[in-house]
Amino acid sequence: MTPKEAMERLETFRVRVDDVDRRIVELLNERTRVVEEIGRVKREASLPIYEPRREDQVFANITAANGGPLGSDAIRRVFERIIDEMRTVQRLRMEKGNSSGTVAGGENKGEK
Amino acid sequence: MTPKEAMERLETFRVRVDDVDRRIVELLNERTRVVEEIGRVKREASLPIYEPRREDQVFANITAANGGPLGSDAIRRVFERIIDEMRTVQRLRMEKGNSSGTVAGGENKGEK
Repeated sequence: MTPKEAMERLETFRVRVDDVDRRIVELLNERTRVVEEIGRVKREASLPIYEPRREDQVFANITAANGGPLGSDAIRRVFERIIDEMRTVQRLRMEKGNSSGTVAGGENKGEK
Repeated sequence: MTPKEAMERLETFRVRVDDVDRRIVELLNERTRVVEEIGRVKREASLPIYEPRREDQVFANITAANGGPLGSDAIRRVFERIIDEMRTVQRLRMEKGNSSGTVAGGENKGEK
């Protein structure tokens, strides 16, 4: 393989990685939207935001779904980060809800 | 909303989260497979595994793709974890390649 051929192959693979990454971003945002809905229901029903048992279910689900090649420990560490970021979103949302005294609808769009 | 109604809604949302999570797992594995191909090309062409400039491209791509509601900082932190896990896969793969003296094909399936 010449250096030129190597660079061309790398470029092709990188286009594929970028495409996969954009789809991951889309799914992370979809997950955030659903988690925000969950937060809304919990606030309205005065249920606790944090449920450790639910987290176990999430990890069980992703472990069962994992066919590799990425190891389940690695997948779990990625999801720990995802869950942590979503928890921050929910916490900020709660603080916002508390300070304004209302739980505003439609606030989950377009926020960065 | 009665507690029963709240629990039913939560259950519906959780089914959606689990579905999104399985799709994320699939994409993480797809990304790993492409990253392994990249590693193979780099080893064959004796190119450096770590390229900080490529990382900047990855972050630029995901930031441009992000339409929210998850903030770009949060997305970036998730991808830092993803990239870190993939780097570990590449490192292990290199060590393996070095110790056996060959770069085995087809070794990227089914490994946990």
